[in-house]
Amino acid sequence: MRTRERILRAAAEVFDESGFSGGSISRIVRRSGTTMGAMYHHFSSKEDLARAVMAEQDADLDFPPGEDGLQRLLDMSMEVARQLRTNVLFRAGVRLAVEQGDFGMRESAPYELWIKRFTEQLVAAERRGELLPGVDVEDFARALVGAYSGTQLLSEISTGRADLLERIATMWRYLLPGVASPEAISWLRIEAAPEGPQP
Amino acid sequence: MRTRERILRAAAEVFDESGFSGGSISRIVRRSGTTMGAMYHHFSSKEDLARAVMAEQDADLDFPPGEDGLQRLLDMSMEVARQLRTNVLFRAGVRLAVEQGDFGMRESAPYELWIKRFTEQLVAAERRGELLPGVDVEDFARALVGAYSGTQLLSEISTGRADLLERIATMWRYLLPGVASPEAISWLRIEAAPEGPQP
Repeated sequence: MRTRERILRAAAEVFDESGFSGGSISRIVRRSGTTMGAMYHHFSSKEDLARAVMAEQDADLDFPPGEDGLQRLLDMSMEVARQLRTNVLFRAGVRLAVEQGDFGMRESAPYELWIKRFTEQLVAAERRGELLPGVDVEDFARALVGAYSGTQLLSEISTGRADLLERIATMWRYLLPGVASPEAISWLRIEAAPEGPQP
Repeated sequence: MRTRERILRAAAEVFDESGFSGGSISRIVRRSGTTMGAMYHHFSSKEDLARAVMAEQDADLDFPPGEDGLQRLLDMSMEVARQLRTNVLFRAGVRLAVEQGDFGMRESAPYELWIKRFTEQLVAAERRGELLPGVDVEDFARALVGAYSGTQLLSEISTGRADLLERIATMWRYLLPGVASPEAISWLRIEAAPEGPQP
């Protein structure tokens, strides 16, 4: 692994274990097996590291293949739930995005990234006639990112994410009738995607 | 105001401004106009204060009157959105409940409290025939608290809660078809409740 990646991964591990406030730069550097000099060559501060870990939500997921549309949106959302349980870099990014207020950050970029991703699938779904008339795709994508963020937070706090896949499936069961055409609902499947490659 | 309440309110103000990690006990005591001795008489630690502020979500809201059921659930949820913008004690409690991971807490009690409150309204709604057949009221109440928590978080991060009422209304527009009977949907109103008394 290149130095920047080693530091980023070490930061994710430390933030995943202890949060931003509980994780020190010196512990991250020690964990990475690099040096303070290397760390400050790549990142200007702990906030900068946190921002980079959050931004990795964009890069580090391996979504299941499939045609764009509602089924793929469902599959992606279940894959996200699985990755939250297994992928430290991703999980740390989500945790930082939720808890960032406590360390004085307010970055909407990690949320906008998911709104954009979900909107793409919804635009395809609309083209394929899978949506109810009158659904505003960006509006719903934003509602979905909000609902998803809180559902995973509640699952984390109440069960350490043991019930996460079930909770995301439940969220979808209540959301689909407000967004999907009855015909689409008849063939859509809400289930975890097959295991993808691990990061 | 009694001493305990003055300290609790000062803690809420400080946590609301700076978060848990950014707010010190000495600043809270100074803000309260009491003494360190008084503070430690009532609260054993900063965590204990945070827990008390979170627990005030139970006590400090003045919900609009009305018969229990789906309309009241909608009205309550819009009132919560308004209170998040105006009621410091409540807002601080919600913020701490969301960001608590960063300071090493994991209290599900504030969420369970809302699940219970929402379940009561849903049980009444079911009795009144306002729900679709097959809706599990506790299951939906939990999904609603998750969706609500994330919706307010995203609104806070992206607009400082300027769009909160609109976002909660949008959430409901997509959720109602999955939970309410078509007849109930025809007369339910999604709108902010009239201004209640300020805390």
